[in-house]
Amino acid sequence: MSQLRWDPFKRLWVIIADQQGRRPRDFILERPEQVTTACPFCYGQEEKTPGEVFAIRPDGSRPNRPGWRVRVIPNKYPLLRIEGNLDKRGEGIYDAMNGVGAHEVIIETPDHQRDMTAFSVGELADVLRAYRARLIDLRRDERFQHITIFKNHGPAAGASIPHAHSMLLALPVIPPHLQISLAASEEFFQRKERCLLCDVLAQEADDGRRIIRDDSEYLVFAPYASRFPFEVMIAPRRHGHDFALLEDGDLLRLAEAMSDILRRQRSVLRDPPYNFILHTAPSAHYRPGKPGYWASLPYDYHWHIELVPRLTRPAGFEWGTGFHINPTSPEEAAHFLREADPSAGL
Amino acid sequence: MSQLRWDPFKRLWVIIADQQGRRPRDFILERPEQVTTACPFCYGQEEKTPGEVFAIRPDGSRPNRPGWRVRVIPNKYPLLRIEGNLDKRGEGIYDAMNGVGAHEVIIETPDHQRDMTAFSVGELADVLRAYRARLIDLRRDERFQHITIFKNHGPAAGASIPHAHSMLLALPVIPPHLQISLAASEEFFQRKERCLLCDVLAQEADDGRRIIRDDSEYLVFAPYASRFPFEVMIAPRRHGHDFALLEDGDLLRLAEAMSDILRRQRSVLRDPPYNFILHTAPSAHYRPGKPGYWASLPYDYHWHIELVPRLTRPAGFEWGTGFHINPTSPEEAAHFLREADPSAGL
Repeated sequence: MSQLRWDPFKRLWVIIADQQGRRPRDFILERPEQVTTACPFCYGQEEKTPGEVFAIRPDGSRPNRPGWRVRVIPNKYPLLRIEGNLDKRGEGIYDAMNGVGAHEVIIETPDHQRDMTAFSVGELADVLRAYRARLIDLRRDERFQHITIFKNHGPAAGASIPHAHSMLLALPVIPPHLQISLAASEEFFQRKERCLLCDVLAQEADDGRRIIRDDSEYLVFAPYASRFPFEVMIAPRRHGHDFALLEDGDLLRLAEAMSDILRRQRSVLRDPPYNFILHTAPSAHYRPGKPGYWASLPYDYHWHIELVPRLTRPAGFEWGTGFHINPTSPEEAAHFLREADPSAGL
Repeated sequence: MSQLRWDPFKRLWVIIADQQGRRPRDFILERPEQVTTACPFCYGQEEKTPGEVFAIRPDGSRPNRPGWRVRVIPNKYPLLRIEGNLDKRGEGIYDAMNGVGAHEVIIETPDHQRDMTAFSVGELADVLRAYRARLIDLRRDERFQHITIFKNHGPAAGASIPHAHSMLLALPVIPPHLQISLAASEEFFQRKERCLLCDVLAQEADDGRRIIRDDSEYLVFAPYASRFPFEVMIAPRRHGHDFALLEDGDLLRLAEAMSDILRRQRSVLRDPPYNFILHTAPSAHYRPGKPGYWASLPYDYHWHIELVPRLTRPAGFEWGTGFHINPTSPEEAAHFLREADPSAGL
C-alpha cells in the first residue's frame, strides 16, 4: 500500500507509491506512450475499466455500456486507495499515514480522436458537470481534506493514455500550495475584509496589459508573476470560493471561456502539451468544527483554473529552491494570445 | 532588464527574464542542445567568455589563458545582472524589484570529454573549493540575500552546454524552500535547543534502511519523504550551518563521498541526467542587524547537498499543488545504490 510521508525539514507531504517489483532499469528511460490494441476509454471497452462512478448518459443507457458522453471511473492503478483508514502515526521525527484517497479518471469523450480544443461548448460543459458531481460526492467522505482535479494533455505533460481524459485525486491532507494561498487570502481578509483574488482581478482588469479575454463573467489573463511561459489564469469576476456551487449556466459560460483560451493556446503554440488544474476551496472547509474550518468563509478562497503549456523543462534550480525563472513576460504572452485567432485550424 | 515579481496569492517570487525578440514559435519545441564549433569552456577559448572571476591555476598561468583546472566566469547571458540597485517598488497589489544578482558558471574541468563521475577526488575537491571561494566573495555584496550553487547534468536536467559545469545564482531574496527549512529549523531549535537536521541524521544512521554510505563524517542517504525516485541527501554528521566554513580537508572528504554516490548513481541508473544543489545558510545571516539575522545562529540551519536524477517528468498535479508522488520507495532506492559497484564502468 502506498504511504503519505511528512518531511519535517521541507515541511511537505509526499506520496510514496511503492510499485512492487520495479527494477532500476525501469527508470532509465522515461516510460513510452502506452500502446493499447483497444483503448479502454473507447465505446465498447467499458468492461476493461473499473465500474463507473458517474456518467452523463443522454440516451438513458445502462451503466458500463456505450451511450455515455462523459464517464468517470476509478483509476485501474490507483495512487491512493479508497478502502481503509488513515492510521496516522509517528516514525520518530517523521509522520506517516496510509495512502488512502480516491484516484479517478474523467473520460471526457467517447471519441478517441477528439481533444478538448475540438469540443463544442456543450461538450466541455458536460466535462465540468462531471467535475462538479464528483466534488460534491467525494466531499461527503470525511477522510479527504481536499479534492484536486487536473488535466494532462500530451506525453510531455504527463498523459500516458492519448484518449482525452482528466484526473481526480482526493487527498487526506491539504496540498502545500493551497495552504499558502488559503493563509494569504485569510490574512488579507482579516486586514481588509476583502477577497485577495478579487483585488487581483480588479487590478488586472483595470490595467489590461495581461488580459487575454474578459466577458464580464470570467477573466482570462496571464498572471503578473507567471512561473511558466504562457501561463494563464481563468477566474470568475464574481466572488465564489467553491466551484461545486456553480449552476449549469455558470458552467456553460466557463466552458465558453475555456474553449476560447484552449484554442488560442493551440493556435499560438501549435497544440502544445499542457496541464490545467482546478483550484477550489478544500473539502475540509465544509465540515464545521474540523481543524480546517474557518469562520471567515466564504472569503478565504476564490476558485480559479490554472492553465500551463509545458514549454520549458525546469531544472535543478527550480526544484531545489522553489524559485522560478520565466523567460517570457506575461505581458508578451498575453499579447500573443489576445491577437490569436481561436478558430484557426478548426 | 529582468525583474523579480511577487505573487501575493501564491506568495512567491518569480524571475521574469524578458528575452527581447522571441516569437511564440521559439517555444514550440524545446531548445535543442547548443551546437558549438569550438566549445567556449575549453582551453584556448577563454577569450570567448567574460573574464574570469576566480580560477585554480596550479601552473601560475595568467588569467583568461589556458593552465587552469577550475575556472569561474560570469554567465554571458545572465538571468540577473550584477550592476544597479534593486529599486524595490509596489505595483498596486504586487511587488517588484530589478533583476539584480550574480549569475556565474563554474567550469569544472578543461577537458570537454570528462564528467564529474570521472573526476579524481582531488579534482572534485577543486570544484568545491571554487564554490567556497565564490560564496565568500559574493557574500560581501549586501544586495544579495542568498547564493545558490547547483549543477545540471544532461539536457534532460537542463544543461544546455555539454562541457562539465555548475551554476551560481546570487539572489536578492531568500528562496521559498530555504525559507521553509529555516523556519522549521528555528522552531525546532526554540523548542528543543537542538538542530532539526542533526536529529534527522541521527535517526537515519540509527535506522539504517535508507543509508547508502556512512563514513562517519558524511552521511549519504535516501530521504524518508523523497520527492523523486533515487533522490539522495549528502550531509555532514558534525553540525555546520555554513558550507563556506569548511576547511580543505573537509572538502576532500566531501569530494570522496560525492564521487562515490555519483558513481553509484551512474552504475545503477546508467549515467542518468541529474541535478544537485548545495543548500547552505543564507548570506543574509552573516549581516547582523539585517532582517534575516537571527540570534540562534548557527543552529538555524544545517548545510547539505541534494542530488536528484531526473527520471520522471512531473505533471500538472505536482506543479499545481506542490504535492509530490514518488513511485519508488527510498528504502528500495537506497538498497540498489548501496549494492552498486561505484567503480563499475570506470
